[in-house]
Amino acid sequence: MAYNASRQPDVSGLTVGIIGGTGDQGRGLACRFARAGQTVLIGSRSAERAVQAAEEIAVMPGVPSGATVTGGDNDEVARRSDVVVIAVPWDGHAATVAALAQPLAGKIVIDCVNPLGFDKQGPYALLVAEGSAAQQAAGLLPDSRVCAAFNHVSAPLLADPEIDRIDLDVLICTEDRELVDVVGALAARIPGMRGVYAGRLRNAHQIEAFAANLIAINKRYKSHAGIRVTDV
Amino acid sequence: MAYNASRQPDVSGLTVGIIGGTGDQGRGLACRFARAGQTVLIGSRSAERAVQAAEEIAVMPGVPSGATVTGGDNDEVARRSDVVVIAVPWDGHAATVAALAQPLAGKIVIDCVNPLGFDKQGPYALLVAEGSAAQQAAGLLPDSRVCAAFNHVSAPLLADPEIDRIDLDVLICTEDRELVDVVGALAARIPGMRGVYAGRLRNAHQIEAFAANLIAINKRYKSHAGIRVTDV
Repeated sequence: MAYNASRQPDVSGLTVGIIGGTGDQGRGLACRFARAGQTVLIGSRSAERAVQAAEEIAVMPGVPSGATVTGGDNDEVARRSDVVVIAVPWDGHAATVAALAQPLAGKIVIDCVNPLGFDKQGPYALLVAEGSAAQQAAGLLPDSRVCAAFNHVSAPLLADPEIDRIDLDVLICTEDRELVDVVGALAARIPGMRGVYAGRLRNAHQIEAFAANLIAINKRYKSHAGIRVTDV
Repeated sequence: MAYNASRQPDVSGLTVGIIGGTGDQGRGLACRFARAGQTVLIGSRSAERAVQAAEEIAVMPGVPSGATVTGGDNDEVARRSDVVVIAVPWDGHAATVAALAQPLAGKIVIDCVNPLGFDKQGPYALLVAEGSAAQQAAGLLPDSRVCAAFNHVSAPLLADPEIDRIDLDVLICTEDRELVDVVGALAARIPGMRGVYAGRLRNAHQIEAFAANLIAINKRYKSHAGIRVTDV
């Protein structure tokens, strides 16, 4: 079937939690979901920092005045959310995800972590024993519904209150077809974004690794590049 | 600098050779370069099959009547071309490339090979000892100028004479900045295509592997998908 935004489920009532919501990527996604009118929970190891970030986001230009953006520690956020975005640094990924296995049981988990290394020549993809960050999360969260998505969104664009529209496709890798519809609908809540199914979890590695290419593209063209899938 | 098509070099006089020019991908690229007015040499292990493919392409709708499309064995094509596209099956890649090291010395080599495996669950990226097909080629061709490019072009679209325009970006990975301009200009000879620098050769793996995702996308959306880079 062709891409059809009108067939997407209504996700406006879902509470979206962001684990690592005080980092650049997590905070940026929290801003966009808050602007879209989702109830957003910011998670952090420190509940205090999460509450502070939530208070800042709630008053940002573009966020509706009645928006519900609150903060808490990662465990509380995992428990209270319907959909949980994992947006932590790669070096804390396994430990953070493993510790949340119980509160994340039955939940939708979106992993947007890109395992990258950096040296004098710039960014490069790290080898991951499980194949990808998303596969690592899926292994650690056997009772959750896990996908890779939102790997290519530019944190500076997400956080820029002047920008109303971000034109890119959110590539979604998962074994769970119904999940594609839900996560695709969430992506489409952000003006300019579409969610596009992009294969099974075993093909998530190259999507995560492509973040290294996007960094190279951004350096060369002074851009905040994303991907649009053509003919879909 | 931003992407700027007007600053591209004139590549209209370059002879483009296709190693593996009788396969789907190679033949499709040969069609498009012939339509664009490049002198095209089709290479194959069998000179006879190459000559036959060249004769068929020369009379295809859209190919100018004065177009020069000829065929020969891979060695001859490598010698007589300015730019050589490697479009052979992955399982013959190393042997074919290694055998052409001498005739390819000093030449521009574009590797568009995607090392994929297939099983009941569909396509997946193969692990490559050198990192990627392009890195393998670069290692085997120390005297050539090697890049990865044209990894995501759809063979059915390339070969369809009814299609005048193919909207996608050709991602180019290489250490050689000047090569980006030449290969980018060649890509831009095909209406709808742009060549976009996408990082060093060490980041070519994920671009090759992404072909598996494109196959999954095509299956799901009944498309011939490619990538467009946004904000470039």
